[in-house]
Amino acid sequence: MDLLMIPGPVQLHERIIRAMARQMIGHRTKEFSEIMDYCIKMLKECFGTKHDVFIISGSGTAGMEAAIASFSKVKRITCIDNGKFGDRFVRIAQRYTEVDALRFEWGSSIDLDAVEKSLANGSEAVAFVHNETSTGILNPAKEIAKIAKKYDALVIMDGITSVGGDEVRMDEWGIDVAVVGSQKCLGAPPGLSAVAVNERAWEFYNERCPFYLDLMAYKKKSKDLQTPYTPAVPLFFALHEALKIIEEEGLENRIRRHRTFAKAVREWALSLGLELFPKLNEYSRYSNTVTAIKMPNGITDKELRGTLKSEYKILISGGQEHLKGKIFRIGTMGNITKRDVLATLAGLEDVLRRKEIIGESALDVAMDILDEI
Amino acid sequence: MDLLMIPGPVQLHERIIRAMARQMIGHRTKEFSEIMDYCIKMLKECFGTKHDVFIISGSGTAGMEAAIASFSKVKRITCIDNGKFGDRFVRIAQRYTEVDALRFEWGSSIDLDAVEKSLANGSEAVAFVHNETSTGILNPAKEIAKIAKKYDALVIMDGITSVGGDEVRMDEWGIDVAVVGSQKCLGAPPGLSAVAVNERAWEFYNERCPFYLDLMAYKKKSKDLQTPYTPAVPLFFALHEALKIIEEEGLENRIRRHRTFAKAVREWALSLGLELFPKLNEYSRYSNTVTAIKMPNGITDKELRGTLKSEYKILISGGQEHLKGKIFRIGTMGNITKRDVLATLAGLEDVLRRKEIIGESALDVAMDILDEI
Repeated sequence: MDLLMIPGPVQLHERIIRAMARQMIGHRTKEFSEIMDYCIKMLKECFGTKHDVFIISGSGTAGMEAAIASFSKVKRITCIDNGKFGDRFVRIAQRYTEVDALRFEWGSSIDLDAVEKSLANGSEAVAFVHNETSTGILNPAKEIAKIAKKYDALVIMDGITSVGGDEVRMDEWGIDVAVVGSQKCLGAPPGLSAVAVNERAWEFYNERCPFYLDLMAYKKKSKDLQTPYTPAVPLFFALHEALKIIEEEGLENRIRRHRTFAKAVREWALSLGLELFPKLNEYSRYSNTVTAIKMPNGITDKELRGTLKSEYKILISGGQEHLKGKIFRIGTMGNITKRDVLATLAGLEDVLRRKEIIGESALDVAMDILDEI
Repeated sequence: MDLLMIPGPVQLHERIIRAMARQMIGHRTKEFSEIMDYCIKMLKECFGTKHDVFIISGSGTAGMEAAIASFSKVKRITCIDNGKFGDRFVRIAQRYTEVDALRFEWGSSIDLDAVEKSLANGSEAVAFVHNETSTGILNPAKEIAKIAKKYDALVIMDGITSVGGDEVRMDEWGIDVAVVGSQKCLGAPPGLSAVAVNERAWEFYNERCPFYLDLMAYKKKSKDLQTPYTPAVPLFFALHEALKIIEEEGLENRIRRHRTFAKAVREWALSLGLELFPKLNEYSRYSNTVTAIKMPNGITDKELRGTLKSEYKILISGGQEHLKGKIFRIGTMGNITKRDVLATLAGLEDVLRRKEIIGESALDVAMDILDEI
């Protein structure tokens, strides 16, 4: 069995595995509504919102599309693309309205002046990815929302891989709509997404959006703590347990742990002479949930990740699309432990060492940082 | 723990419960593709097709919308509504194209002349529900497809509650697109749907359909036995096991078992003097997976279903929408046993007996029929 150190699906805590091993219940029951009630309450905390949260039986992409399509009554939307999931926002939004696609080289930072120019030019909404896992960059959510406010634009944020693992303060930052996926920092299995929506977003409601992803239908049913269509019940059992684990750990502790894990990976990589992939500017940061590292000379993707998998049973990710073979990515999301992080770095060192790509070990650098928590 | 005798989600076989209790695997792996491979192979058998089958992480409604939206390049579609799910087809299709909604009173049969007239009038597609669980009727799939053929119209069938439990011969009948849900006759938990698509359907492909439900994206990835977006992995584990159970039982035996169970419920009800809800014509049949019975005088829905649940821990369904309180419905889908059927009928008899609604027991009638298998 492989240890999953990819940016989702993440390794499951055994409590979450056990939570799924249950007989089905009717979904139009009080028992199901109680599960919904708790999930919504905890998700609000993770999003940093007092507004509505709706849970969709579908992947993060379903959540992204629900967010875009339900609120697509805009004459133009600015979609920021500095990675695969930014590009996905462009592709989704193009099915509903005119899109100003602000494209930045994958791995580079967002130019906020370009965002402002696009909004000044008449876009009524902006969509962006908070934590871009394809490149390992954390985009400046607060700053983008601040600019959007000046132009009264709707702000839609993909928080799929930040919510529950990094700081997200939706209401405080001025984000109108945000999305999370179950199988990332929340630590649950894949198959659910949640969309947080404030009151203002409904001004942009488009009743011609897809039936299954129509958030108005979810809103109507949410009063009874129900879903409009049959929910993926076992995944709700799992999400419920995953959120209990978050409550027990404490969201602040959890965020600190995620930040420490990512920092340990980064400092370890830099100490070995490896290069981090993202090019930061003054507003962007390295991701606190996934680290993207340039593939060093002298080893192929297949050798690096293949050996780690076959010999160490550890799964990390490669690059996506045109980044295939050029970077590798280590996810440090969810309910993993210091042991998992250290084992991954040690395994990687062994693979790199045998290829004579690195000299001395840098595990002590990682240990020092991990010892902070 | 309640015994689920509702038309989905169904009671899970313990093997299926255990199948979900697994650590996550990476979904871009050979291991996941092998699961896909088996699921697709078995689903093709259940649909009665040699064409493509795509699995969507979403409820049956997501599957219905994927079927309608992906193939909505038609100037008009005829949607047949003789129950809640027929009505759902109307509502979904209205978001994509002009709809000729053929509405028949819920519980009544489809007038095939009206279907022919609508198609002769220029509809390029027809959508209908095979097994309408809201009313307990089996609509004439083969006959509708035959009429559609005359006008070269695309045929889209909701087989959500028939595929895997009743006879479906998609290719032979001339159905172009069909949908199934995981939590019905297939016996798996809710959260997945599958859409079977023949080559001809692609003539009607609309590239402006929702991104998440765009079956072209599924088709492209299916060559690698992959899904375009992150799949709900635990539900694939469960579906895989559910389909193994179907293979072991044998699809023909399974269909015979479903038919026998539904017949036992019907004959039992009639022997007690209860009335079946559907009004059949020469083409329609009683559903073989759910039985809808008129609520007898002298008892309320709450008394009937409430007592059955509180005292016997058996969950059956009431009527939906305007049928609330007027009918009750007994699902006999999936991996339930003769014991479950008999326990449900016995429990119901006790509830009705105490209200002096029935005289002598009719359990022997049910037993005689159940003994056929």
